[in-house]
Amino acid sequence: MSDMTVIGLGAMGTALTEAFLDKGHAVTVWNRSPAKAHALAAKGAVVAASVEDAVRSSPLIVVCLLVYDTVHEALAPAREALSGRTLVNLTNGTPEQARAMSQWAVTHGANYVDGGIMAVPPMIGRQHALILYSGSRQGFDTHSEQLDALGTSKYLGEDAGLAPLYDISLLAGMYGLFGGVLQALALTGSAGIPAGEFMPLLMSWLQAMQGGLPKWAEQIDAGDHTSNVVSNLGMQAEAYVNLIDASKASGISTELMLPMQSLMKRGVAAGKANADLTSLVELLQPPKQVD
Amino acid sequence: MSDMTVIGLGAMGTALTEAFLDKGHAVTVWNRSPAKAHALAAKGAVVAASVEDAVRSSPLIVVCLLVYDTVHEALAPAREALSGRTLVNLTNGTPEQARAMSQWAVTHGANYVDGGIMAVPPMIGRQHALILYSGSRQGFDTHSEQLDALGTSKYLGEDAGLAPLYDISLLAGMYGLFGGVLQALALTGSAGIPAGEFMPLLMSWLQAMQGGLPKWAEQIDAGDHTSNVVSNLGMQAEAYVNLIDASKASGISTELMLPMQSLMKRGVAAGKANADLTSLVELLQPPKQVD
Repeated sequence: MSDMTVIGLGAMGTALTEAFLDKGHAVTVWNRSPAKAHALAAKGAVVAASVEDAVRSSPLIVVCLLVYDTVHEALAPAREALSGRTLVNLTNGTPEQARAMSQWAVTHGANYVDGGIMAVPPMIGRQHALILYSGSRQGFDTHSEQLDALGTSKYLGEDAGLAPLYDISLLAGMYGLFGGVLQALALTGSAGIPAGEFMPLLMSWLQAMQGGLPKWAEQIDAGDHTSNVVSNLGMQAEAYVNLIDASKASGISTELMLPMQSLMKRGVAAGKANADLTSLVELLQPPKQVD
Repeated sequence: MSDMTVIGLGAMGTALTEAFLDKGHAVTVWNRSPAKAHALAAKGAVVAASVEDAVRSSPLIVVCLLVYDTVHEALAPAREALSGRTLVNLTNGTPEQARAMSQWAVTHGANYVDGGIMAVPPMIGRQHALILYSGSRQGFDTHSEQLDALGTSKYLGEDAGLAPLYDISLLAGMYGLFGGVLQALALTGSAGIPAGEFMPLLMSWLQAMQGGLPKWAEQIDAGDHTSNVVSNLGMQAEAYVNLIDASKASGISTELMLPMQSLMKRGVAAGKANADLTSLVELLQPPKQVD
């Protein structure tokens, strides 16, 4: 018996296996194309002959493939072997996919834990690699010490969809940030300002702006977007015109900036001119049901 | 004679005046509607009877109005009085507006300095209020000690358009960040997760992601987007589908997220699948001239 089995040996699955091996665990691996498994065998992993053998080798099965469809395909021949084991699925997907997979795994007698890896492969095995988990608490608790070999574990709750939901929400925040940085660099770059000169200023500015986010959370949880507003939506929507005009004047695309402008305008039209920017969250959400 | 004159007494102009007064300066003020000036008179400001008197009262004229058109209107009757003085214009605008205003002021014999206030009024007078300046170095150097009363001054260069360009670029970065945070909060909020529970995780995640930005700057300045790429554009574009799907499944608007997806797709179509996200800056910029 191994301590755990890793199924799927792309860059991430390989990094996961290496992190387990580094902690002295006995690891069985399986991959559709066996070349990658052999590379890990040289480091001490046991290569299973079939996915069913792979599953039968360990109480903990960690899966990391490209998409959920591939997970279903890969595990189908081994479904009878899942009973009594913990299946930790670290494949990227949506909350809905995670919940469906959980249901399937539970039907076959497994403890199902879904996970979201908030890290790139080179970070795996280090503390600053955050890994989110949700689903079977029993499954997580039984194996949390082993999973800690991969990074910093955070368990979010019994709903298997929580880890991908947090994952996707964090990525949504990140891509917003990245889009803003791309736009800023396009603007300064087209004026001949080196990115290395502008970046420290941008970073400390973003840092300062994030200082206000705890207040955002309070306002949103209180549903109060109009108390102590320093710069209201109406003023911000007016000043935003300069951002669009300046981009246009430099021949810079406004494609990343226009949606925020139209959201702000919709907010003003909906009577939120005196409210804070936080009031826009509601405009992104589906209309509330009236009882 | 006063040390400086402040023209325009909205929330920001009032905060500027108070910060000058707090440092013991003699300040003359003028505002189209006089009520706001009288409130400052009670704190020691001298209220000018006309904008021309206001300009003649000080060697340093600080203007903070809503838009550049209003600055032109307000200063027109006082243009003959500008000669030999320093005009610091802190009104929000574009680089083009600042350059045009600079030309006009220089024609009338003034030293012109444009400025961008990276702060809200309550922050004025404190060190963490960043104020960007560009334009006449002589004008800035002569008055920089007085301007330091407003916050932390940063002089960017002789081109009057630099301060608004930096200002707008920093705001573009900020609105990207804010858009991402709004999307993240819409997603988690619709699943019933309190913002106060999610926010600390989001903040530390964004913090971690910003750790990579100095490398972005290096890549962009080197024009090399393909060395040491950990997560390439092709992989990111594929994973991005989950963000869109998960938003749709929760009934959350994808309006803030779609432009980044189409930009990524354009990048992949342009042969950048193996490049880093930084390669997208070029796609936002006007096509390079071929010599």
